[in-house]
Amino acid sequence: MPIKVISGTALHTPTRGRLEVLENVHILVDETGRISEILPSDHPRLAEVRAHAEAQGNLTELQQGQFLLPGFVDLHIHAPQWPQLGKALDASLEVWLQKYTFPLEARYSDLAFAREVYEGLVEALLANGTTTAVYFATIHLEASLALAEICLTKGQRALVGKVAMDDTGQCPDFYRDADASTAVNETRAFIQGVRELAGCEDPLVRPVITPRFIPSCTDSLLEGLGNLAEQMDCLVQTHCSESDWESRFVQERFGASDTAVLSRFGLLRQNTILAHSNFVSDEDLTAIQHKGAAIAHCPLSNFYFANAVFPLRAALDKNVHVGLGSDISAGHSPSILDGCRHALLASRARQSGIDPRLPPDERGISGSAVSIPEAFWLATAGGGEALGLPIGKFVLGYKFDALVLDLNTPGSNVGWFPNLDTLEDLFQKLVLNATRSNIVMVWVDGAIVARSPSIHL
Amino acid sequence: MPIKVISGTALHTPTRGRLEVLENVHILVDETGRISEILPSDHPRLAEVRAHAEAQGNLTELQQGQFLLPGFVDLHIHAPQWPQLGKALDASLEVWLQKYTFPLEARYSDLAFAREVYEGLVEALLANGTTTAVYFATIHLEASLALAEICLTKGQRALVGKVAMDDTGQCPDFYRDADASTAVNETRAFIQGVRELAGCEDPLVRPVITPRFIPSCTDSLLEGLGNLAEQMDCLVQTHCSESDWESRFVQERFGASDTAVLSRFGLLRQNTILAHSNFVSDEDLTAIQHKGAAIAHCPLSNFYFANAVFPLRAALDKNVHVGLGSDISAGHSPSILDGCRHALLASRARQSGIDPRLPPDERGISGSAVSIPEAFWLATAGGGEALGLPIGKFVLGYKFDALVLDLNTPGSNVGWFPNLDTLEDLFQKLVLNATRSNIVMVWVDGAIVARSPSIHL
Repeated sequence: MPIKVISGTALHTPTRGRLEVLENVHILVDETGRISEILPSDHPRLAEVRAHAEAQGNLTELQQGQFLLPGFVDLHIHAPQWPQLGKALDASLEVWLQKYTFPLEARYSDLAFAREVYEGLVEALLANGTTTAVYFATIHLEASLALAEICLTKGQRALVGKVAMDDTGQCPDFYRDADASTAVNETRAFIQGVRELAGCEDPLVRPVITPRFIPSCTDSLLEGLGNLAEQMDCLVQTHCSESDWESRFVQERFGASDTAVLSRFGLLRQNTILAHSNFVSDEDLTAIQHKGAAIAHCPLSNFYFANAVFPLRAALDKNVHVGLGSDISAGHSPSILDGCRHALLASRARQSGIDPRLPPDERGISGSAVSIPEAFWLATAGGGEALGLPIGKFVLGYKFDALVLDLNTPGSNVGWFPNLDTLEDLFQKLVLNATRSNIVMVWVDGAIVARSPSIHL
Repeated sequence: MPIKVISGTALHTPTRGRLEVLENVHILVDETGRISEILPSDHPRLAEVRAHAEAQGNLTELQQGQFLLPGFVDLHIHAPQWPQLGKALDASLEVWLQKYTFPLEARYSDLAFAREVYEGLVEALLANGTTTAVYFATIHLEASLALAEICLTKGQRALVGKVAMDDTGQCPDFYRDADASTAVNETRAFIQGVRELAGCEDPLVRPVITPRFIPSCTDSLLEGLGNLAEQMDCLVQTHCSESDWESRFVQERFGASDTAVLSRFGLLRQNTILAHSNFVSDEDLTAIQHKGAAIAHCPLSNFYFANAVFPLRAALDKNVHVGLGSDISAGHSPSILDGCRHALLASRARQSGIDPRLPPDERGISGSAVSIPEAFWLATAGGGEALGLPIGKFVLGYKFDALVLDLNTPGSNVGWFPNLDTLEDLFQKLVLNATRSNIVMVWVDGAIVARSPSIHL
């Protein structure tokens, strides 16, 4: 018998761009947090299943106006930047980094400060429906381990990386690893530490090898981290071809693209998460696809700092794994629903172009726009595929990472007109207008991890 | 003595791009809803003023974590489209209009339906902090009058227009004015009706002459409405140069731009509100500025339907009046805070361009990005200037249209770290991350028009 039964109408995008409505189903979750059965409302065993779950106190019944969605996957978060969410975005990238971001990240040598910030961050992300989070922490071993531990304690599925950055020309004196071997050794210790905390069999929290980006790392560090990834069979994340400056810097230093350089150092691996990748070439996309690596598309921060728009359609057409990243705090929103909206806007800006003085066919890039179900897929199942994890859709054997959106919360901007709207219409309204205030319950691995005080469930 | 005193810290942008923090002030409001005094915390008369207001039950004291902002001005809302907010935005403009929008607008011949929708709309906009709303209603006289009456009853400052559209080639048979003279006569009756409802001296709700856009109106209708504007000294609103199709259509029909045609028909007047205006030329901008007309910049819907980005910086550099419009429901968000964010994103898309394959200097339009205080100015004082109304800032003689943002509401995504953030930082965080759930009290003309049930005030 299942340990948990959730009844209601579920909306998800099991394949890219296709909405599936599971109307009035019962989802059964087993003791490993996986979906063991999905029963339609006329299933002969339904009464028995319900009676059993109810007797155990394990039946959750969604009410009128409540809908079940997969939890969101955020592929790119700078955890230490949480205190400056929404701050200094009028500044240039140089000022944003040197005056605000590096000094803030340097503060995480203070473990008490780190714990306080990270607890608030993980709680806020869960309340926003982010059930899986991929974090850059800082260079500090202890504070980075604390983030992993806090994710475990609060029940968030997470990939956490201690940041590695040792280049004396590119990193400030007050905030960098002492040298390449120290950075590699501490990364090794971090991986071991997280694996001890979380266990190795189906762990909720995993370590990620995290060179900040190529410019901030010496060749020795990149090489050492590549070897470490192979030795310890560990995931990798980094930034890739984000901006004009960054991609040119790498081209000048190595005579090759970010993607090619990462590949050369053994860092382009299965499920390596490449943040941004705005300036990747077709050849880079082919290499990323070939290795099974993935792109964290961060449309909001790209508007501020990328100098161009990511070729999302080109990546999808090549079957490259792509999901969404909030890029906190270069991205100012912690909500992956906002991420969907920004992915839609970025794709439409790319499609239309920007300059009304040009003829339409010279203005934009035709075919770039993505649909609302495609954007939602990026935020859920696409993110799951990027990580190689069984999450992001309601399918047998997948983890029950999910949330309830409630249309009737105070402060809701989602209008539902049942006489005028189909459930497909409602799905679009939810993706475009729901906010944190609509999210009333969140599960990871079948366990409740966030719950609004006002919930009627 | 004032009839109302509000104490707290106020944030506003009295001039474009300049944030002013009024720390710990008392704002005194007179019986006409105007700000009569702003007293600093060390003012000698403060104790007396406070004691008097307190005795009358007229003192509102903001608490820790609460901030006073000007109410928002939304220059472009299609009121009847409220039920389809967030719906059908994956459709083409043609499908969106013909399959969804026109059939929905046609339903407002049913006055009961209209009343129900409009009551929900006005309440929702007030709760989102929109203290001044500029509405397109429908072609229906009665339902449009009902919208004006509902705004009055609920206390929202509003400009309401009965839509005029008579061209048999462009408007569907089931939804258009019978002919030009009927449309002009009904517009006249509408203007008289609203003026009777609202009074003529400093009215809260005003009528607006509203040709839908040039393509949907015959020459006779445009001419009749231009004459009516002059005869009745009435404001005008319409769409202007929104998209490739629309601006080409007008160019082919008249051999002139939208702006020039509107001017020719006497519709480009002081405070005429021109929605969109993406394809205006420099000459058009000069004409708009010269006439004292204004542009309702609608960045969100432009991403979906405009084919290009409005030249905001060019308009501002020419001192053209510009404010923000939500463009409900081609824009899916009812929040003008969202409008600020979308104006920032559109301006940055215009600045950076979209195609990473182009060299940077051929990609975007340098100097296009607006700052966070500029975006907020558009949403408040800029909108007020567009309408020629004394609203949008905390200045003597201006109307007290204001709201309280509370950082401590459940579901808030605004993080305040008082040890790390100045009030200037906090302002940016509010503009970028506050939502309806942070808005706990709203005033128009000094009267409370929305109030969160959970408010601690």
